[in-house]
Amino acid sequence: MSASTHQKVLGVAIAGLGRLGQRHAIQLARRTPNAQLVAVCSPVPTELEWARDTLAVDGRYDALSELLVDPLVDAVILATPTSLHADQAIACLRAGKHVFVEKPLSLDVAACEAVEAVARDCPDQVIMVGFVRRFDASYLEAKAAIDCGDIGTPFWVRSQTCDRYDPDGFFVGFAATSGGIFMDCAVHDIDLARWFLGNPQAVRVFATGMIAMYPDLAVHGDVDNGLAVVEFDGGQRAVFYVSRTMPHGHETTTEVIGSGGTLQIGMGAHASRVAYRHSSGVSHRVVPDFFARFEQAFQTEMVAFVDACRGVRPVSLTLRDATEATRIGQAIALSLTTGVPVNL
Amino acid sequence: MSASTHQKVLGVAIAGLGRLGQRHAIQLARRTPNAQLVAVCSPVPTELEWARDTLAVDGRYDALSELLVDPLVDAVILATPTSLHADQAIACLRAGKHVFVEKPLSLDVAACEAVEAVARDCPDQVIMVGFVRRFDASYLEAKAAIDCGDIGTPFWVRSQTCDRYDPDGFFVGFAATSGGIFMDCAVHDIDLARWFLGNPQAVRVFATGMIAMYPDLAVHGDVDNGLAVVEFDGGQRAVFYVSRTMPHGHETTTEVIGSGGTLQIGMGAHASRVAYRHSSGVSHRVVPDFFARFEQAFQTEMVAFVDACRGVRPVSLTLRDATEATRIGQAIALSLTTGVPVNL
Amino acid sequence: MSASTHQKVLGVAIAGLGRLGQRHAIQLARRTPNAQLVAVCSPVPTELEWARDTLAVDGRYDALSELLVDPLVDAVILATPTSLHADQAIACLRAGKHVFVEKPLSLDVAACEAVEAVARDCPDQVIMVGFVRRFDASYLEAKAAIDCGDIGTPFWVRSQTCDRYDPDGFFVGFAATSGGIFMDCAVHDIDLARWFLGNPQAVRVFATGMIAMYPDLAVHGDVDNGLAVVEFDGGQRAVFYVSRTMPHGHETTTEVIGSGGTLQIGMGAHASRVAYRHSSGVSHRVVPDFFARFEQAFQTEMVAFVDACRGVRPVSLTLRDATEATRIGQAIALSLTTGVPVNL
Amino acid sequence: MSASTHQKVLGVAIAGLGRLGQRHAIQLARRTPNAQLVAVCSPVPTELEWARDTLAVDGRYDALSELLVDPLVDAVILATPTSLHADQAIACLRAGKHVFVEKPLSLDVAACEAVEAVARDCPDQVIMVGFVRRFDASYLEAKAAIDCGDIGTPFWVRSQTCDRYDPDGFFVGFAATSGGIFMDCAVHDIDLARWFLGNPQAVRVFATGMIAMYPDLAVHGDVDNGLAVVEFDGGQRAVFYVSRTMPHGHETTTEVIGSGGTLQIGMGAHASRVAYRHSSGVSHRVVPDFFARFEQAFQTEMVAFVDACRGVRPVSLTLRDATEATRIGQAIALSLTTGVPVNL
Repeated sequence: MSASTHQKVLGVAIAGLGRLGQRHAIQLARRTPNAQLVAVCSPVPTELEWARDTLAVDGRYDALSELLVDPLVDAVILATPTSLHADQAIACLRAGKHVFVEKPLSLDVAACEAVEAVARDCPDQVIMVGFVRRFDASYLEAKAAIDCGDIGTPFWVRSQTCDRYDPDGFFVGFAATSGGIFMDCAVHDIDLARWFLGNPQAVRVFATGMIAMYPDLAVHGDVDNGLAVVEFDGGQRAVFYVSRTMPHGHETTTEVIGSGGTLQIGMGAHASRVAYRHSSGVSHRVVPDFFARFEQAFQTEMVAFVDACRGVRPVSLTLRDATEATRIGQAIALSLTTGVPVNL
Repeated sequence: MSASTHQKVLGVAIAGLGRLGQRHAIQLARRTPNAQLVAVCSPVPTELEWARDTLAVDGRYDALSELLVDPLVDAVILATPTSLHADQAIACLRAGKHVFVEKPLSLDVAACEAVEAVARDCPDQVIMVGFVRRFDASYLEAKAAIDCGDIGTPFWVRSQTCDRYDPDGFFVGFAATSGGIFMDCAVHDIDLARWFLGNPQAVRVFATGMIAMYPDLAVHGDVDNGLAVVEFDGGQRAVFYVSRTMPHGHETTTEVIGSGGTLQIGMGAHASRVAYRHSSGVSHRVVPDFFARFEQAFQTEMVAFVDACRGVRPVSLTLRDATEATRIGQAIALSLTTGVPVNL
Repeated sequence: MSASTHQKVLGVAIAGLGRLGQRHAIQLARRTPNAQLVAVCSPVPTELEWARDTLAVDGRYDALSELLVDPLVDAVILATPTSLHADQAIACLRAGKHVFVEKPLSLDVAACEAVEAVARDCPDQVIMVGFVRRFDASYLEAKAAIDCGDIGTPFWVRSQTCDRYDPDGFFVGFAATSGGIFMDCAVHDIDLARWFLGNPQAVRVFATGMIAMYPDLAVHGDVDNGLAVVEFDGGQRAVFYVSRTMPHGHETTTEVIGSGGTLQIGMGAHASRVAYRHSSGVSHRVVPDFFARFEQAFQTEMVAFVDACRGVRPVSLTLRDATEATRIGQAIALSLTTGVPVNL
Repeated sequence: MSASTHQKVLGVAIAGLGRLGQRHAIQLARRTPNAQLVAVCSPVPTELEWARDTLAVDGRYDALSELLVDPLVDAVILATPTSLHADQAIACLRAGKHVFVEKPLSLDVAACEAVEAVARDCPDQVIMVGFVRRFDASYLEAKAAIDCGDIGTPFWVRSQTCDRYDPDGFFVGFAATSGGIFMDCAVHDIDLARWFLGNPQAVRVFATGMIAMYPDLAVHGDVDNGLAVVEFDGGQRAVFYVSRTMPHGHETTTEVIGSGGTLQIGMGAHASRVAYRHSSGVSHRVVPDFFARFEQAFQTEMVAFVDACRGVRPVSLTLRDATEATRIGQAIALSLTTGVPVNL
């Protein structure tokens, strides 16, 4: 990273303007200091129009190859379908751009490793995978507490990603390509477990699951509620629960158990600091979805990426983390299919 | 208290078989070791029948004077109307019986003092006023923590007795004789404030209130929501909130603020350890009334009384505490009526 | 059950006066209406002396066979070592006594079934296994809510029995005979999962675990933290976490997830209704152990047993439930040892 | 407000670069879309240097009169001492600038009304007082719920502003000019009470207080713990508790009690979504101060002001609200001094 990079505003482009891409675009256009959203790329004309009308973005392309030759672009955010992530990340790196790629890096371990190989050849470029929960203030507090020894030696992680039941079953349409519930949801939990446990080596996994509410998942071999266990080489364990059928909202939580204490993150999924008292009892509202829960973290994540590109501070997660998350996630998916434990 | 008392089972009688009297009767008949419910007294024939049929009590009287000559009676529980408490307590003492009298001891300070005078002449007899919240496990934990210095020097108490809104307005019928909302409800909070603050002397009070839901209270000069402040001679303050109109249940809470910490008792008024998650949010159920909240404390209180009568351990509260609660409560009631602070 | 049984006080004996036996003895002697503790049995002379001195029990035996011929004994509580439960239960039944036997009924499924066979021959005698958590007010509230359809169709249970870390490792001494952590602790959770899910048939289990704090467990093939999954025939899942190493206290919780809601029991393990505010934050104290958490439930359980013996109301759990808990628990223990899923 | 205003970026200046002024400056420079921090004003040279070095602000003045002739300045943020607010606000208005003035508008009701009079002559200019808690997401949720009838008719507000104990007693140095604890802290609570209750007219107040930890306050007639009651013309009541001595952090809460429900905002003052379990119990950390608690609200507030200046949407609070807060606050301060209720 050259010293000059440090001084100037970073020109950022976004490829993919679906739900998540649009959120990144708004973050970059309005709330990320030292960055400017200079270009967008999407094969969908209405998405490009949205970027023009809402965010006044001048550079608008329907192909990544065109965007990569735009000289104003210093860095690219890849919010495209997962199946494109690895190849696009490589293309960006080869075009000399910094890259932020949404999770998972790929459903294929070999593809992850291919990106790693190219990245090793581009040591001055930043490449970062969007494990956004690492940038949430509560997860950061927990990590700092653990690093200070607050809970002794951590040896067990319980983590869950549970989405609110969607009567429309929006996600079912993606079941064919998402890699299944574990790759889609638990990949965050896998990454967090490794992070909190100090990056132990996974040696064996087991998974089980069932369909409670979405029978259409059966044709894809997918489930709407699942559990996975990971055994690590130091004896540590991680347990993941994933669900698409929560009645109340998005309750994503993580518990870390150590020899001197435990900590829990996110229990209750409070939408705010308001508590209600009615004849039915005492209650609070719940965050409806991942975006509402991690709105601040998405912002912090983007700031971290921009800071890294500008040489202000290094990124805290590596491509190796992303590859490991895929490797473990795919073993879990295999165990779900075969019904037996899978060795890594 | 003679040594022989210690050995034998205590014969207990109950005068007054209204809601609270019946509860005491059941406690004594079924769940109080070393005590036997030997007699009851009520002017209401159906109440005496209830005691015979449900609890198989042999001694049944329609006048206290008759009950007091029953040789099986060692101790009397007075759960009669407040206006009778003082005279009946004196009669019991003079008959050589131990006495447990429901709070308040009297609405009249002079009557309280008259009981004190008689009690001084009967040093071998126990007399105890039913400030049941002092026997609740959480209040006891708080008191022990404060006595250990856990919150430094306590200097401010906030306490509330808030009843669930009753569409039938059952309590309105008692407004003429209850002494008003502060004497009826806040007398517990007054006693607790003195207990937690180390029995400082009250020097001035101020009260205000309003009618939110029960217009029929106006003719009695009573309110359904009220606030009172007590200033003590050491500078300490106590603030009481009383309400008859809570939508969710009985939320009786106390907060003690000290120089090194604070503690809160009863917040949330959980009916159990169950939490629910529905599309409307996360919730828990609430205790419906004073009896549900303090069921265990009523039991502990009765055990403490029986233990005291049997010489096992002394009572932790004095008649002086009861007199002070009435003195402060009546000053608060006066301030509510006159609208100005009242000096004590 | 004869009508006459209904009228008289039940004569109860207790065999086994260890920690749990003594608690049952105190409950029966002091807080269980319509029952009288008439006899105890223990091979340990000091335990018999304790029963004489503390509870004034007249019938004291060092062998169960002697106790069983005591005509005052209507019912026997077996709080003896697990290895004796089945044979002793059979002996009690054959002697014409009602039986309450602590969990687990046996570590051996065949022994459980032998008890079932004898019990079928004694239809007028009550036999009940001590799944105490079924008698806890919060678990009962949850069951009632589920039965009312409050959470729709329940399909997933997460339940844990987590003990506070004991520096003395008291429990390690029992590791050789306890049947391992799952039979010792999770047997409650297994029973609860079947109860909440409507008694589905378990078809497969998987378990994993590790030793975090007690290396001496290794020689017994036991662990101090473990996880087990049960797959039921209707697709339902149950997940159990057991731990001996919690830093804060005994946190035993259960979560039931349904199509229309979820509920959680016991989260936070509050010791009381007191919350503290200090410079270190806001906190509450935690129940230290199973006894503190389930003190009321032990009382309710004993009342339920006495009521059943006296014909007042039937028991809510069956010997079949106890056999199933052992069958599932043993399969889990086998999976822990072999490392592979076990079919039932 | 002209249509053209809508289009352009708002040029904003800040007068006063103390703790709060610096925070506003950072917000405007980095996180407020459609605004540019074009100038600052401070009599303290190092503060001007800070603005130059940290935020690269070109316009730097040591007198407000100079700043007001800078043609780049469309709007002025007044974060100056309270005693200057009213005169400076008038000067800004007369110079044709929009004005944001920190709370309280003035300690003097007549001065507030003078600002109101000038503002009436400048209908095209925005003037807004910094009642930041109105812009907190939780307070907004509560207000929306109340406006929807969620708690029926609100009739009682309990609100508190409680600061963490500061061993250095930083605030004591301001006691001479702050207007006392109620004007300094409770002015927010006063404003919120009026907002939630639908702007009833205050008719009488009463206050009491004591010094628990800061004896130096005595010379200023100030207290470090205080309570105030406000009686409104419709019978509604508001109760405010203010404290400088909380051991755990900044716990600012508000409770609104209505005929059909109640709601509470901010209880527990959670610093994050993390809960800890240690041998001492279950705990969470607490926000240390007002800035940490209301960081997001400060941002939202500034966005609201900029939007109002640009004609996007009107401000939700009026100068009349600020005048009323001062009027009630000063009556409370008088009651604290005189010891008697004060009529308004």
